[in-house]
This record gives sequence, structure tokens and C-alpha cells, in this order.
Amino acid sequence: MAASRDAIRTTVENYVKAVATGTVDDVLTLYAAGATVEDPVGTPVRTTEDEIREFYKVVEPLTQTAGVITLKIAENNAAFVFRLVTHLGEQDLVMEVVDVMTFDDDAKITSMRAFWSQEDMQSVPAS
Amino acid sequence: MAASRDAIRTTVENYVKAVATGTVDDVLTLYAAGATVEDPVGTPVRTTEDEIREFYKVVEPLTQTAGVITLKIAENNAAFVFRLVTHLGEQDLVMEVVDVMTFDDDAKITSMRAFWSQEDMQSVPAS
Repeated sequence: MAASRDAIRTTVENYVKAVATGTVDDVLTLYAAGATVEDPVGTPVRTTEDEIREFYKVVEPLTQTAGVITLKIAENNAAFVFRLVTHLGEQDLVMEVVDVMTFDDDAKITSMRAFWSQEDMQSVPAS
Repeated sequence: MAASRDAIRTTVENYVKAVATGTVDDVLTLYAAGATVEDPVGTPVRTTEDEIREFYKVVEPLTQTAGVITLKIAENNAAFVFRLVTHLGEQDLVMEVVDVMTFDDDAKITSMRAFWSQEDMQSVPAS
């Protein structure tokens, strides 16, 4: 049976929370085996768990806050806007990204593609 | 040469405008030959110009207003949130959708996928 909308919504919320404040393991547990990650879209697709771990390892030590702004679900697909703020001392790095994900029947992520570019990052004085 | 960000941005803005207030021809002129449309995601992909015309023909006679809320561009891909209001007498039908598009070198749309479901439509008193 396909994942319910509520289950997909929960995975998306847990994902954004895990990226901001969790460990690599917290993120990886939301992914299905064999999942792929393309972030940002246009860069090589990460297809192995090692490659995906390496990717999230970079953000793990950062002090971040994040939240989902808009989430649309269509069958076993989701597209959502989220805002990620990285706290770098006296500066905050603010990013808004659109992520597109597919899910398996257990609402585990089977693919993630992130739409953003340098232009979507803004450095502002820490609030 | 790949389409510039500005050219992609213009196509997206013209697309949303054309869907809301233009003709089927206004929409179709933004698409490349051989383009595909999946709206909403999870339904059969429209792969011929006739199928795509038929799709936009349904919204052509409606009185609508629309605007782009958030647009992210990554290489020749865009993901954007837009808001479409259909004016039905004393009621407005308000929809927020995330569209994902790919573009050719002339910033013509080569594919469109729309993420939304019934839950994203709201009927409110006309303002």
C-alpha cells in the first residue's frame, strides 16, 4: 500500500529537522536502501550510501535552524520549500530551497533533488 | 549555450501569466517541441501537442489571477511555487502549486510536472 499523506508529511518534517539539528544517522534513517540524492539539481547524482553519508556529513557539525514553508504532496511524491539558517557567529547564512522527493510504501525517501543556486543564499547579521 | 537564469525566470513568469489570463496558444508558445506535461504528478504524462492543448483548453475560459511566490533555478531546471485564483462568481478557488520544469537552450519548456492535490484547493468567498 502506498504511503499515506500523513506519513509523507512526517518524513518531510523529520528530514528538515534532521538536516538542521540531527546527525548523519538521523538523516540516513529516513532514506530507503538504494536511494539517490541530487543536490543541487544539475550536479552528479549520489547513488551509494557512502556518497549520501559524505554529503550530509558536511552539514552535521553546523549550528542550524530550519522549517518547512510550503509542502505539496502528489501520490508518492512531494515538493516542498524549506528555509535553512546556518548560524556562523555574527552572521547567519539564510537559504531557501525547493526539494522534490519520492517515497516508498513506508514513506522512506527513495530520491531527493534540491533546486537552489548560489543566488538563493544570503548572508545577514545574526538575529 | 544553456539558457540564462534571466531567460528561465522570464519563461516562468510568462507561463504563470499565460495560464491565468492568456490563450492556449500563449501557453503553447512557451513549450519546446516534444515537451511533456504531468499535472498533477502521478497522472499519465501528456506527450503530444494535442494532449497538451487539450489540457490547457480547460483553463483557458476561466477568469483567473496568478503570481509566482518562490522560484528556484538550478542549471536548466526550475522549481517554483505559484498561486492561482479562479474567480467563480461569489467564490474564489485558491490553489497553490509547486511546478518543476526543465528548459532547452532557448528557455523553452521541455517538461513540466505539477505537485498538488485536492487538499491544496480552497474555496473562499470572492474578495
